[in-house]
Amino acid sequence: MNPLTSPLLTDLYQLTMLQAYFARGMQETAVFELFVRKLPPNRNFLLAAGLEQALDFLEQLRFGDEELTWVEQSGLFREDFGEHLRGLRFTGDVYAMPEGTPFFPHEPILRVVAPMPQAQLIESRLINLVHYETIVASKAARSVLMAPDKLLVDFGLRRAHGAEAGLLAARASYIAGFSGTATVLAAPRFGIPLFGTMAHSFVQAHDDEAAAFADFATVFPDSTVFLIDTYDTEAAAHKVVALAPQLQRSGISIKGVRLDSGDLAAHARNVRRILDAAGLGRTTIFASGNLDEYRVCELLAAGAPIDGFGIGTSLVTAADAPFLDAVYKLQEYAGRPRRKRSSGKATWPGRKQVYRHYRDDGLLDHDVVTLEDDVQPGLALLQPVMRGGQRLQAAPGLDTLRAYAKRQLATLPQHLRELEGGSEPYRVEIAPVLRELAARLDQQTRQPVTV
Amino acid sequence: MNPLTSPLLTDLYQLTMLQAYFARGMQETAVFELFVRKLPPNRNFLLAAGLEQALDFLEQLRFGDEELTWVEQSGLFREDFGEHLRGLRFTGDVYAMPEGTPFFPHEPILRVVAPMPQAQLIESRLINLVHYETIVASKAARSVLMAPDKLLVDFGLRRAHGAEAGLLAARASYIAGFSGTATVLAAPRFGIPLFGTMAHSFVQAHDDEAAAFADFATVFPDSTVFLIDTYDTEAAAHKVVALAPQLQRSGISIKGVRLDSGDLAAHARNVRRILDAAGLGRTTIFASGNLDEYRVCELLAAGAPIDGFGIGTSLVTAADAPFLDAVYKLQEYAGRPRRKRSSGKATWPGRKQVYRHYRDDGLLDHDVVTLEDDVQPGLALLQPVMRGGQRLQAAPGLDTLRAYAKRQLATLPQHLRELEGGSEPYRVEIAPVLRELAARLDQQTRQPVTV
Repeated sequence: MNPLTSPLLTDLYQLTMLQAYFARGMQETAVFELFVRKLPPNRNFLLAAGLEQALDFLEQLRFGDEELTWVEQSGLFREDFGEHLRGLRFTGDVYAMPEGTPFFPHEPILRVVAPMPQAQLIESRLINLVHYETIVASKAARSVLMAPDKLLVDFGLRRAHGAEAGLLAARASYIAGFSGTATVLAAPRFGIPLFGTMAHSFVQAHDDEAAAFADFATVFPDSTVFLIDTYDTEAAAHKVVALAPQLQRSGISIKGVRLDSGDLAAHARNVRRILDAAGLGRTTIFASGNLDEYRVCELLAAGAPIDGFGIGTSLVTAADAPFLDAVYKLQEYAGRPRRKRSSGKATWPGRKQVYRHYRDDGLLDHDVVTLEDDVQPGLALLQPVMRGGQRLQAAPGLDTLRAYAKRQLATLPQHLRELEGGSEPYRVEIAPVLRELAARLDQQTRQPVTV
Repeated sequence: MNPLTSPLLTDLYQLTMLQAYFARGMQETAVFELFVRKLPPNRNFLLAAGLEQALDFLEQLRFGDEELTWVEQSGLFREDFGEHLRGLRFTGDVYAMPEGTPFFPHEPILRVVAPMPQAQLIESRLINLVHYETIVASKAARSVLMAPDKLLVDFGLRRAHGAEAGLLAARASYIAGFSGTATVLAAPRFGIPLFGTMAHSFVQAHDDEAAAFADFATVFPDSTVFLIDTYDTEAAAHKVVALAPQLQRSGISIKGVRLDSGDLAAHARNVRRILDAAGLGRTTIFASGNLDEYRVCELLAAGAPIDGFGIGTSLVTAADAPFLDAVYKLQEYAGRPRRKRSSGKATWPGRKQVYRHYRDDGLLDHDVVTLEDDVQPGLALLQPVMRGGQRLQAAPGLDTLRAYAKRQLATLPQHLRELEGGSEPYRVEIAPVLRELAARLDQQTRQPVTV
């Protein structure tokens, strides 16, 4: 059973509820929406991502023989449950915001309309996929906004939470505007540009640092970037300079150096001076080592002559906001709107649409959340992407998504671009018809709630 | 290419270095060690986990035809590189601390001894696996220490970072002492006990809450746990009580109720009273909703009558410490110890062993890190687990690891059990022979460093 595709990668209660729905014949149409209840403290916006993986999952959903055997032998379910599962496919409709769209709390970014058992079963993995790529794209966008003209590379695989996180972090950060990744598999899988040079171990394995550089340059004459902080950064820069004429005679020009420790701003300034003095003005300086958007911002504010940044752990774990209050909630069943009213977790009922309004200068002004059939002015953000379990269009290329995300990020007003959590949140209006529907549903049980 | 097993799930520089090692004939024996440089602010100890997945990875390491074709067509490597990769297997030795062992900064938890190209290539995925399970096991252990007699269940799949994280979080938390998980796939894959009941959507899909409960009980007579916070918790508890006699006549006893929102301590007290007054003293109360070890500790300190806790997002993302400063460093090459001296990131050179010393009462006293051939008193924590690329023993059963971890956690002195980061860190001594070796290596380049 492949965890990446197995329908058993779900919560047990999805299966127990499924059995109850089958047993009671509750197979009418359910409408679920995926949204975030509130922003983490350090976020002023979120960037939607993960839709294509979610649609892949829905298209491929089926119980294989191994899974069915386990279900039958587990002793947890009725005898006929396996037969219900055998034919189960996702046959529903999906509406979603395009990947790369900025969004805000209480705005559905994805809506599923499907027979109840299908719509319920998919909850765990659907959130799992969309939530993760969204936290990484949202995190990556912050570095992109701080350093729009720099080379930004995902270095995070080793401390990503497992294999899929490592791979999808490369995708999500690339959509958000990163230049590429060090994760090799992201190239054959998604066509993402690769970056990478050498580790400290390579330098250490040689008895002499300059010999390590020379060895590497000979093998990779076209992409020679030296890691120069293994022992003494400035001393290594001088070794690079000393090596340059010899390499030049072999037709090799030194593309760059990488700094990975110490006072990066000071080292960058010293190294830049050393390189420039030797006529290596075109050799770039690349920095890495516990970087995130805050450090990148500081380094650039300090005028550090750094051309590119490798950003790893903080990006792929979204370290300062490693999760969102992302949920997938039933909003309608059998044609009737539904509302959860749990304390602090109440939802807006019904099938909803989000309309975006722009200022005259093209920047975001405010959004309106309303019922789907309350057609309004503004740009409707939720678009149909799947009908009857089939994608309406082939997956857009990553470069298309990346260009779209770039245009979208350009519409963020200054206060939403700040790294610190905003004192002035973006305005998301709940339309009167939606408030009225919620009030009507509450009245039916005489229990008003506040969202 | 399956990201869970593909050798291309690595950093590009591993492959570029590999090509250089092949090209320069640098295939002598390398010794790498995996360790953590410092504890996150909120941790007093870490719990090792992920070893079995790491060994699976090493045993299965090979480049398939798809991978080789990509390598050859990528334009990134020399023509003969694919041929070198085709025959590549992991043929090295591995030493490791058993999963479930508490450990501390600067202590190697895993050592790889293998020809340089192999030992280098595996770095990214090896850290990726061991790092993730270790952060989850370490996080889970904190809840176990706070609530040793309660039912603790992993509820985290939906907000885990991808599929593998969801699955491995179930494993790591079970080793650390959790009772089980809601993630279904963890049962067929690892034999972990499953827990789960119903979601709010199940209650909402029924027009009447009591009807939802009755429906569920009929389908699952043996494991009837009702979620009672969808609308009004105490009102729902009264509905449960009213339903009980009717269910009892059908031979169904209500096993428990789940609270998922609001003031959990107050709700638990009210619900306990309502259940007890109706003679349902054996119906348990299970709590969930944004829980972590801090909340569990508060709820129990407040005397909340809660029998079990579902802990999700905070556990699987290790939210207050979502990464460790975990590294895999070259300590010896071609028979000579090596030392990285980068500012703030220097390493202790050579092949090392960790000796653990206990107090008379059986609790941890201190550890000594020394060179492998400096045999000392105390318990040697690193044990051989793989030789020549083959496991020395079959993977131990999870229940064996869980029992071992329980005994290990019992050796933690009180100050290491505190939830807040410790003012009194555990004593890890660096043995004189190790300090001398480091000094000798530094002297060879006349550049002392501080670790």
